[in-house]
Amino acid sequence: MPALMESMDEDFFKAVGAEFLATLLFLFITISTAVNGCVTTDNRVPALKSEPLTDCTLDSGRMLNIALSFGISIFVLVYAAAAYSGGHINPAVTLGLLLANKISVVRALFYMVAQVLGGLVGVAIVKQYNPVSYAAAGGAANQLFAPTTPAGGWGMETILTFCLVWMVLSATDSERAVDAPHLPILAPLAIGLTVFLAHIVAIPVTNCCINPARGFAAAAVSGNWDSQWIWWVGPFSGAILAVLVYEIAFRPDFDGIRHRG
Amino acid sequence: MPALMESMDEDFFKAVGAEFLATLLFLFITISTAVNGCVTTDNRVPALKSEPLTDCTLDSGRMLNIALSFGISIFVLVYAAAAYSGGHINPAVTLGLLLANKISVVRALFYMVAQVLGGLVGVAIVKQYNPVSYAAAGGAANQLFAPTTPAGGWGMETILTFCLVWMVLSATDSERAVDAPHLPILAPLAIGLTVFLAHIVAIPVTNCCINPARGFAAAAVSGNWDSQWIWWVGPFSGAILAVLVYEIAFRPDFDGIRHRG
Amino acid sequence: MPALMESMDEDFFKAVGAEFLATLLFLFITISTAVNGCVTTDNRVPALKSEPLTDCTLDSGRMLNIALSFGISIFVLVYAAAAYSGGHINPAVTLGLLLANKISVVRALFYMVAQVLGGLVGVAIVKQYNPVSYAAAGGAANQLFAPTTPAGGWGMETILTFCLVWMVLSATDSERAVDAPHLPILAPLAIGLTVFLAHIVAIPVTNCCINPARGFAAAAVSGNWDSQWIWWVGPFSGAILAVLVYEIAFRPDFDGIRHRG
Amino acid sequence: MPALMESMDEDFFKAVGAEFLATLLFLFITISTAVNGCVTTDNRVPALKSEPLTDCTLDSGRMLNIALSFGISIFVLVYAAAAYSGGHINPAVTLGLLLANKISVVRALFYMVAQVLGGLVGVAIVKQYNPVSYAAAGGAANQLFAPTTPAGGWGMETILTFCLVWMVLSATDSERAVDAPHLPILAPLAIGLTVFLAHIVAIPVTNCCINPARGFAAAAVSGNWDSQWIWWVGPFSGAILAVLVYEIAFRPDFDGIRHRG
Repeated sequence: MPALMESMDEDFFKAVGAEFLATLLFLFITISTAVNGCVTTDNRVPALKSEPLTDCTLDSGRMLNIALSFGISIFVLVYAAAAYSGGHINPAVTLGLLLANKISVVRALFYMVAQVLGGLVGVAIVKQYNPVSYAAAGGAANQLFAPTTPAGGWGMETILTFCLVWMVLSATDSERAVDAPHLPILAPLAIGLTVFLAHIVAIPVTNCCINPARGFAAAAVSGNWDSQWIWWVGPFSGAILAVLVYEIAFRPDFDGIRHRG
Repeated sequence: MPALMESMDEDFFKAVGAEFLATLLFLFITISTAVNGCVTTDNRVPALKSEPLTDCTLDSGRMLNIALSFGISIFVLVYAAAAYSGGHINPAVTLGLLLANKISVVRALFYMVAQVLGGLVGVAIVKQYNPVSYAAAGGAANQLFAPTTPAGGWGMETILTFCLVWMVLSATDSERAVDAPHLPILAPLAIGLTVFLAHIVAIPVTNCCINPARGFAAAAVSGNWDSQWIWWVGPFSGAILAVLVYEIAFRPDFDGIRHRG
Repeated sequence: MPALMESMDEDFFKAVGAEFLATLLFLFITISTAVNGCVTTDNRVPALKSEPLTDCTLDSGRMLNIALSFGISIFVLVYAAAAYSGGHINPAVTLGLLLANKISVVRALFYMVAQVLGGLVGVAIVKQYNPVSYAAAGGAANQLFAPTTPAGGWGMETILTFCLVWMVLSATDSERAVDAPHLPILAPLAIGLTVFLAHIVAIPVTNCCINPARGFAAAAVSGNWDSQWIWWVGPFSGAILAVLVYEIAFRPDFDGIRHRG
Repeated sequence: MPALMESMDEDFFKAVGAEFLATLLFLFITISTAVNGCVTTDNRVPALKSEPLTDCTLDSGRMLNIALSFGISIFVLVYAAAAYSGGHINPAVTLGLLLANKISVVRALFYMVAQVLGGLVGVAIVKQYNPVSYAAAGGAANQLFAPTTPAGGWGMETILTFCLVWMVLSATDSERAVDAPHLPILAPLAIGLTVFLAHIVAIPVTNCCINPARGFAAAAVSGNWDSQWIWWVGPFSGAILAVLVYEIAFRPDFDGIRHRG
């Protein structure tokens, strides 16, 4: 049972601020990648006079760039923010760590609000930059690309968020780290590259969400509210499932040392 | 001589479960990448009305995305599963570690069954998602692309699985790790990127197997049983060869401390 | 308040030399990638007779190669140069570490001069190599690609350099490293991949600078001085902002141990 | 002054064998990537009947795949072979370490012969696999792509091999590692990614050699001896330059502890 409250001291608000800033930068970088990548620029001199070409087809090249942007952003931002807030940058990760009894309810709520607000600011800045390519890319909003059904979108988001939260739980389990020195050192890389995998799989299906702050911010700024419930229920389903599986089947101390101590 | 049996306690079944889950996720992610990447979506608004284009040509862009998906999946899943089961996710790796006397016969058999079953479930989920692009991609089944001969396919699978199992043996040899601190820390990355290399080499040859659970599951779900024997004999040949070379030529303690002790 | 002077001994000049050499290699590698990548060579035999095709369109494939070249160069050069000079390779990073009180004024000035001179030499070598593709690529000079405004270019450079300098400050804060063993080990990778992200975002906007030595050297060698002030003011704004945010909000010892001691 | 001889015991020949095997696998993987990537396969069912298309244009997508194959191969093979032989896999690296007084003359000679023989076997296997695409790719032999001059090719190979050998010297300097824990752990990754950078820069210039065993083996198997001297003199020039710069300017103990002791 997670604690309801905790001391809201300076470190607490520093952590909330880190979640706000990291989610802002995360969505500024990633949505910019999706939007700016639509513009193919012919940079032969005189470059300023060349006409940028707008083409938002999600072919394998653009998919790779977008997926790398999402995955590597999470790597570097988890790397930098972990010491302040744990580096969640995602309400589904926060929910998972709440259910796994690693953070309090009040911290989870403040984190989620900070993530959503940070995400809104990050995406709003992108929109100001290049309205034409922003519109051409549909604001990079999540949506069900044909022939994906709502149930299919929900399932895809659930499975991929399950992977992400399972990775976070594995990476942050300090008891396992005793026997596995690679775990804490490679943690930000493994978490970031799991986000990469989710995108290389699901961009053609749902534009890949796995993060309600991303789904909500992109929808709110673009006005495309298509299937918004999926971008919350899917990632949260995956987080809940990951905690259940991890706690029931895979915790190293299942019925073990900690409960006996 | 490996042990035949071992105590089948809770940790044993946790390990078998980890192999099942990791192979399921591995093939869900990778076969999805191969299948979904066939759909080129024009995401200009209104996106839902746009016609997805199906094109499964294995050009350099798609090959890179698929190879990254296989390699990085192995990195993150070995990262997460290593503490439970060692993170084999591949019957050829399991065979190699059995022959290298690191696991018992009963564990090897349970792992292999779990890997094949997990693989079947993972690929079966992919097929439900997008039957049209699944069919267009031929279910990502392994096959001999012209002008590869059966002997050539066998050889290619043997060489590349040799690389993988040699890497696993090097990465997990705790005696070598004493003098080489990078070995345990970078182990999941080196193993995963070896899988990447195998795919960037062999996708145009055999669609790259190096893992009988992958070859069998993709064949069983798609019904394409072309050259199925190669996807078992090739990886197993490579694993046997790797153990022979490693044990005879490269073991740090060859004729050394352990045998004298 | 940073120290004005320091002992200019052999180690000091070794550090300045490392900055010169690392920036030279950095810009030789990265500008070469941007320029050479313009040439599409048909390598069917007899290759020497084939006509190289010059096409500098910044599509997603070229953007990825260029962004990887910038990011991975910074990774390997920070890796190698860190022990001598800290591995700045960028006047904006040097400014940030000066303002964060980690280096002296005299060291900052010598570093910046060495970086600019190294950059000039590196780009000048590239120009000698292939004048045709160098010209076709506009010398890879930074410029405002339509429809980016000067204010937009400044803002983009500020945000992305903020990310870079924030990462450097996080990675090099030895007090935080006590609790986070991944910080020093992954530092060069996190810094390098932040540079990758900046380029995958901003190549279609400003060709991505975030480094006045890069902006100046590319302009001086190509003669394209378009918006040169932005390539200094933008990165420096980002560095100043990063130090302010880090020192005020995120320093682990804010109002803490160090100031009390 | 390096030692001329050393005890040629079992470990010595194990090391030579590791260089042979690692170079064999290195060139099998990388030349296969360059050759197989020429075949674009339409894998729509029935795949076996589809006509493979041969197109060896070195566009940005193929360049990336080939550069990743070279760089990541070096990463994983250095990772696995370092404990036996140091993981040179390249006569230029061996020359550099000989001149830096880290290995004996007899070891250097045996390593170089093993690397060249291993390379010949690796490339010869590739040629057997797919003679049509092997021929179409010109056997991936090094050559001067227009408008590169012999002097330009020499210079490019010198600069890029300088980077590689400088990285190897930095990564393996055990005295520096005391203060920089990231150095030994990330060493194989930094060395491998330096090889990646060399290829992303120089594939359009010389097809990128930086390794006489690669240049010689590709020439001998394909019969394309174009500018063979460059693939030896260039990498060796770079190695000599790196040792000079490192020993004179950057050795941590220059005129220091070791010489006084």
